[in-house]
Amino acid sequence: MAVFDFEIKAIQGLARNGVLKTPRGDIRTPAFMPVGTAGTVKALYMDQVKDAGADIILGNTYHLMLRPGAERVKRLGGLHAFAKWSGPILTDSGGFQVWSLSQLRKMDADGVTFRSHLDGSEYRLTPARSIEIQADLLGADISMQLDECTDWPCTKDEAARSMQLSLNWGQRSLDAFGEREAQTLFGIVQGSTYPDLRRESAEAVSAQGFGGIAIGGLAVGEGHDAMCRTLDETMPYVPTHFPRYVMGVGKPIDLVEAVARGVDMFDCVLPTRTGRHGQAWTWDGPINLKNAKFAEDLSPVDERVDCAASQDYSRAYLHHLIRSGEYLGSMVLSWHNTVFFQDLMANIRASIAAGTFNDLRSELSARWADTKSKPKVETAT
Amino acid sequence: MAVFDFEIKAIQGLARNGVLKTPRGDIRTPAFMPVGTAGTVKALYMDQVKDAGADIILGNTYHLMLRPGAERVKRLGGLHAFAKWSGPILTDSGGFQVWSLSQLRKMDADGVTFRSHLDGSEYRLTPARSIEIQADLLGADISMQLDECTDWPCTKDEAARSMQLSLNWGQRSLDAFGEREAQTLFGIVQGSTYPDLRRESAEAVSAQGFGGIAIGGLAVGEGHDAMCRTLDETMPYVPTHFPRYVMGVGKPIDLVEAVARGVDMFDCVLPTRTGRHGQAWTWDGPINLKNAKFAEDLSPVDERVDCAASQDYSRAYLHHLIRSGEYLGSMVLSWHNTVFFQDLMANIRASIAAGTFNDLRSELSARWADTKSKPKVETAT
Repeated sequence: MAVFDFEIKAIQGLARNGVLKTPRGDIRTPAFMPVGTAGTVKALYMDQVKDAGADIILGNTYHLMLRPGAERVKRLGGLHAFAKWSGPILTDSGGFQVWSLSQLRKMDADGVTFRSHLDGSEYRLTPARSIEIQADLLGADISMQLDECTDWPCTKDEAARSMQLSLNWGQRSLDAFGEREAQTLFGIVQGSTYPDLRRESAEAVSAQGFGGIAIGGLAVGEGHDAMCRTLDETMPYVPTHFPRYVMGVGKPIDLVEAVARGVDMFDCVLPTRTGRHGQAWTWDGPINLKNAKFAEDLSPVDERVDCAASQDYSRAYLHHLIRSGEYLGSMVLSWHNTVFFQDLMANIRASIAAGTFNDLRSELSARWADTKSKPKVETAT
Repeated sequence: MAVFDFEIKAIQGLARNGVLKTPRGDIRTPAFMPVGTAGTVKALYMDQVKDAGADIILGNTYHLMLRPGAERVKRLGGLHAFAKWSGPILTDSGGFQVWSLSQLRKMDADGVTFRSHLDGSEYRLTPARSIEIQADLLGADISMQLDECTDWPCTKDEAARSMQLSLNWGQRSLDAFGEREAQTLFGIVQGSTYPDLRRESAEAVSAQGFGGIAIGGLAVGEGHDAMCRTLDETMPYVPTHFPRYVMGVGKPIDLVEAVARGVDMFDCVLPTRTGRHGQAWTWDGPINLKNAKFAEDLSPVDERVDCAASQDYSRAYLHHLIRSGEYLGSMVLSWHNTVFFQDLMANIRASIAAGTFNDLRSELSARWADTKSKPKVETAT
């Protein structure tokens, strides 16, 4: 297995600015990966994704194995050619969507059998099959080990059992991955919101021989504060030479606070999902263009963002487009949000390099404080 | 009322190649106008519409008066600024959509009262109100008189009554339009598929003092052959110095055959509507990318069309995107179709200029013969 060179260029506190070097191009970190679920970043042309400043995108194994099928993607030249993206691609293992989307899933010690949410047909995913799909068929530059997504909240016994299963599947994933010259594999830390389980998982996964370490099981309803607390309790046990990736995160304030805790990589559907439905993320916080107050607002979405989507379309026009269900409204807002997230990461990287990250963090975390996600259920703490 | 200079540069048979000169730019004819229903050509950026070669777009009075409201568009700077289109815009009168979309419409001699298909609220459209919306509030370069869309098929008595009403409304539209320096108004010929009514209407409308003449009441179910026959029976009575516009037409074969009968302008939702649902129009005829035979077809949509949409996306990828309901599939195919229709018009214009239109017509009409629309009902002929 290749271990991509990860050069850390500047550090401020726990925050790092670096470059992860892959055969398909450099990934400037901290990096936000736009999500190309089914071989497309929804409502964007790939040129827009690239021009936004994204160095890497994410593809979803679950979606692609169901449609058009991983073997078909392989026959069509692999995911890079299929989706017209020549830079690096990270694929997830499929585990998260099996947990969140599929029907009638049955877990066992060796993998998971489930039915497609599209047509009910049966599939099986094991650590080895997930690697085959990601690395051999889709051709991902970075593959993820298959893990079990633990429900949140859950008992400590359940979290421990699930964490051990993921650890076992991580080893099987490594064994299946084998020797590869130009592709790498990341392991995933689990353990829910239990500090000692997180530490145990982080230490064990970090010792297994992966090319990078992901923190899984976050952004599943625990809320912003518990996410930060879990990162505080986990990151010290992930050696600093690894690229460190928090999966499925998040809102701008989550990105800022996770970077402050030493995270290097992120992915989330938020920019495109919220954009499709009328929400724009700006330096002043999120705004919902559906709101009647924008009906005659001729100002742009956010003129501080250097992009036609952000500067050239009036809020009034976008309000009309979104209310009318017009494609262009979703297209422009998904585009703007994608650029905004990349601009945020570029600002974060520059501030770490300049030694001003703490100032940026203080300012943004205060400004965006009311966007913190709350826990989906109350728990005893 | 301004009468835009219409320079006819070349003639072959009845087909003409010319330029309609408007204060916002020249319109090369024969011209196909992309339809920007609600202030957006669906699923396209305006730059793509412009780069496709479109000189003018169409806006729908009915849609815009309901949402966002014509007065609101005026307050926001008019339709050109609102929709980010700086070239000429033609608006329809609203009559066609009142007839095809609205609820509970009540016609009287002075206009039509109807309920919005969006929320049931009541509106009234008269010749004067339609002109106010189009010319004063939206700011159209070319407005259309309000007319009554006659059902097809209909009795001759009904067609005659309806045609006379439209003639009367045409005069009221002219009176309401009054003197304008930079805007013009087109009249509309009706008469269903009755030759003598069409002649009567064409002669009367042509004498009323409009800046251009449209042929209405086609593409309403009569089918390709009846459309051609009606044009044969109508066009001789529309003086050749007018720009002549067939509303709501059509498929590529309709465009070719109507140009051969002396038509200069067209509009139709076909390129974007069919594109959204997976149909691509090519020089070899239409193909439906949803079809399973394209699932592993790595060829582009039509490499003879000089556009990234036509050349850079494999049919296999588009098949996947359309089947998956992904925005990008609709975006790329609407874009390709828009460029294809503009390319077709450019080829038609060049062939008339070169004296080779008859050859082009023979070739394309033969090649596309099986795409001719059939009548929606059988009628005695």
